[in-house]
Amino acid sequence: MAESVTAEEVRRVSEQAKELQDSASSMISRYSNDEQSLRSRVAALDSQINKFRSSISSAVKQRSLDSKEAEKLDEDLFRAKCILTDGDTAAFLPRKNHEGFLKMFLGPINVRAIRKDVQLKVKEEYNSYKDRTAFLFLLFPSILLILRSKLWNGCLPALPVQLYQAWLLFLYTGLALRENILRVNGSDIRPWWIYHHYFAMTMALISLTWETKGQPHCAQKQRGVQLFLQWAMMQGVAMLLQNRYQRQRLYTRIALGKARRMDVVWGETAGVEGQLWLLCPILFVLQGFEAYVGILLLKTAIGGIASEWQLYACGILLIIMAVGNFANTVETLMRKSKVKAKMKRNKSKQDLVQGQNN
Amino acid sequence: MAESVTAEEVRRVSEQAKELQDSASSMISRYSNDEQSLRSRVAALDSQINKFRSSISSAVKQRSLDSKEAEKLDEDLFRAKCILTDGDTAAFLPRKNHEGFLKMFLGPINVRAIRKDVQLKVKEEYNSYKDRTAFLFLLFPSILLILRSKLWNGCLPALPVQLYQAWLLFLYTGLALRENILRVNGSDIRPWWIYHHYFAMTMALISLTWETKGQPHCAQKQRGVQLFLQWAMMQGVAMLLQNRYQRQRLYTRIALGKARRMDVVWGETAGVEGQLWLLCPILFVLQGFEAYVGILLLKTAIGGIASEWQLYACGILLIIMAVGNFANTVETLMRKSKVKAKMKRNKSKQDLVQGQNN
Repeated sequence: MAESVTAEEVRRVSEQAKELQDSASSMISRYSNDEQSLRSRVAALDSQINKFRSSISSAVKQRSLDSKEAEKLDEDLFRAKCILTDGDTAAFLPRKNHEGFLKMFLGPINVRAIRKDVQLKVKEEYNSYKDRTAFLFLLFPSILLILRSKLWNGCLPALPVQLYQAWLLFLYTGLALRENILRVNGSDIRPWWIYHHYFAMTMALISLTWETKGQPHCAQKQRGVQLFLQWAMMQGVAMLLQNRYQRQRLYTRIALGKARRMDVVWGETAGVEGQLWLLCPILFVLQGFEAYVGILLLKTAIGGIASEWQLYACGILLIIMAVGNFANTVETLMRKSKVKAKMKRNKSKQDLVQGQNN
Repeated sequence: MAESVTAEEVRRVSEQAKELQDSASSMISRYSNDEQSLRSRVAALDSQINKFRSSISSAVKQRSLDSKEAEKLDEDLFRAKCILTDGDTAAFLPRKNHEGFLKMFLGPINVRAIRKDVQLKVKEEYNSYKDRTAFLFLLFPSILLILRSKLWNGCLPALPVQLYQAWLLFLYTGLALRENILRVNGSDIRPWWIYHHYFAMTMALISLTWETKGQPHCAQKQRGVQLFLQWAMMQGVAMLLQNRYQRQRLYTRIALGKARRMDVVWGETAGVEGQLWLLCPILFVLQGFEAYVGILLLKTAIGGIASEWQLYACGILLIIMAVGNFANTVETLMRKSKVKAKMKRNKSKQDLVQGQNN
């Protein structure tokens, strides 16, 4: 016979529920108050640091402050700022208004994790998402191109291509959402990569409406699609290489204490030094090919073989993405060489000082 | 001359940054610990309540407990459970695994707000999002249909229709994401409405790939699109009515203490009582029309006027959605009448008791 529950036990459970409710509500309000006060203190200090730094630089300009002394002060202030932006206070810094994309899809929900371990979990998952998708990025167009020549006699049927394009749309939307979330969580991912994914989303959406089949000159009509698939294959290989090298490099940089762990290194040239000379040519070739596909689409549209607006739109988007990627890669390379030159200069200065001391 | 910053001031700022870092990290770890312990206590009590309730019901079955006494105990336990699920402890209940959709798009980020006021802001924003979109839901197809007859001579061009379909895809994705977020935040939105939006997303995506132009028999080919647009207009009107009535009703229920404020009443029949008899017929007509459009698409596909797979897919999806909506509306109506019958019974019992007491 089942032993039943006594009224006393039920009464105790009810009391416990009320107690838990009380402690939950007091905990939430305590936390809200603490958070509020921390937030305002962090904001005040942050703006004070900014004010100090600008007044130092103007004092240097007016020669009322020795430039060496100013450099020392500014360095200290920069370090204080780093504590605020990299440490646990980062979660309480005034929020930047870059969240339009997230607001559009998710509403006003807060996606900032206050615990560092959760933030890092988000970052890790983003990296593994990129790895998984880079593999598919290589696989899908390869299958389509192989089937095209082996099974479909040089003429792609619409459905598999559209499935691939729908997958691209889903992929880029997911990447754009995740990158915005990473940014809210303090990652310094470069804005261009997020814009790049907005453009790619738009292109995937447009290409879904783009009719490729049922024409007499299938091969000619599908020349753009075919080139795009070839480019996507190359892109898949490049993504796999990049992901591997960037992760290695990120871990190295974390170990050296140079990077915050939330940094996303999708700046395409951030490979490990030696491998950079392998990656860079691949990236430039890819960007050139991307622009070439774009120009070819425009030529097809203007030449009148097929003149759907999708050709113009995709052509222009591809060229924008190629130019933007190129500019960003060059900028990263230049910044890298500047940093290296500065490091060399500092090192020789140090050697000099050490030489004098010896 | 700009007054410069002294080394003393900079030192003080650096110290403050370190202090803030310390208080932030201690606050975060304190909060994490508090949260952890509250989480385990809530989980323990929740499972104990479930155990007690099932042991009471088995005791009643074995007649080892008086059914009247059992009812009283069960009511108390139910009230305790309500405290846990409705109050501030709700944020600390073990999470349900309904988050696949969110995980797919956002990764493992937590979208649960612990503060009630934030949760309610999310809810409010969802309601106003629905209002805004219901208006557009009416506007866009109306414009398309008007232009079709006034400007385009009965034959819709592809681009405006595709823009509309892309908007639908974006809209339904946004709704599905928001509803999943609401669910994580403790709303009891019925699962069907979320599935409904997954189906609608799929249909919008498919319809983007659906070629409508350039055929000799444009009007015949576009019959499905035209019907769909007419249905969408009706749907827009119904959405506007529903949103208004459901909000009123939600506020009434909140005032009466019957609904938690996080409840979403998108069960289509949850209108204000008198207005229910206006809404219900509209909803049934809409559902009938939805199924009719679906069947018509299938007939067109089978009849061979046009036999793209998109016709089959959209036809089947429309029929599934119509049947699901119908089933859910009927279920809600039936539950409503049951509740009403029970309330009447209770009331007459009360009257009886009061009569005896007088």
